[in-house]
Amino acid sequence: MKYWEDVELNQSRLSTRSYTLTAQEIIDYAREWDPMPFHIDEAAAKQSPIGQLFASSVHSIAIGVKLGHEMMSEEIAIIAGLGWQDVRFPQPVFAGDTLRIRSTVIDKRASKSKPERGIMTTLMELIKADDSVAVSYKIINLLWRRPDEQ
Amino acid sequence: MKYWEDVELNQSRLSTRSYTLTAQEIIDYAREWDPMPFHIDEAAAKQSPIGQLFASSVHSIAIGVKLGHEMMSEEIAIIAGLGWQDVRFPQPVFAGDTLRIRSTVIDKRASKSKPERGIMTTLMELIKADDSVAVSYKIINLLWRRPDEQ
Repeated sequence: MKYWEDVELNQSRLSTRSYTLTAQEIIDYAREWDPMPFHIDEAAAKQSPIGQLFASSVHSIAIGVKLGHEMMSEEIAIIAGLGWQDVRFPQPVFAGDTLRIRSTVIDKRASKSKPERGIMTTLMELIKADDSVAVSYKIINLLWRRPDEQ
Repeated sequence: MKYWEDVELNQSRLSTRSYTLTAQEIIDYAREWDPMPFHIDEAAAKQSPIGQLFASSVHSIAIGVKLGHEMMSEEIAIIAGLGWQDVRFPQPVFAGDTLRIRSTVIDKRASKSKPERGIMTTLMELIKADDSVAVSYKIINLLWRRPDEQ
């Protein structure tokens, strides 16, 4: 079991698995959840400022969550998720893009009120094949501290 | 066209449409995007701290995005989305929950560098039938100011 004390700061991990999107997948996801013309209709997308079909924000986050499962191979003593912060979409995700996720713990602090708990903030970045960031978000988790070090 | 000047602060709108989740939908979405045992297996969910099957975070946000489309009936002069802030999950979303979305513009400011642009922050809250909040997040958008008032 990996406790709060065992989590290393600023060590980035890139997923070995990747996810390659097709136009049909972009359209199918968006028809169900986010039917904006530039997500579901190639002709309308060509007329939009982006100029081509691109994935819904929530679709790109779902891909990040899916790829992020690979990072959870070690059992971490997470009590609960406290939320997400600073969700940004610096670049559109297009059909044909091959995406990986990079995860980096960027902050750790002990709980002030509960000495057996700690908080960590993990930056998740959905990365394109050219290494640029398409989506980034920070996940805040509450986790157990190592029992013998409280 | 609704410009930055026309957006009213602190006026909440609740969607008339709602979305009722089934256990099968929770499982199907999570199998694809977020296959944690407590999202895809009722028996495993019973053993988890929540005690029953509940929807993946990204699934509940997708429902918020879907219901939020109703709020976009008036054409708003949005230039771009700048991201999401303060994504919180105060309560799990269960099978059988009937959800609505509430949208409230909670902040407006003029762009300092570009007088023709403004920024608005909209609080989105996914609401259960008992009026409690299951998920909340803030969307930050860049939009045009009214041309004759720059």
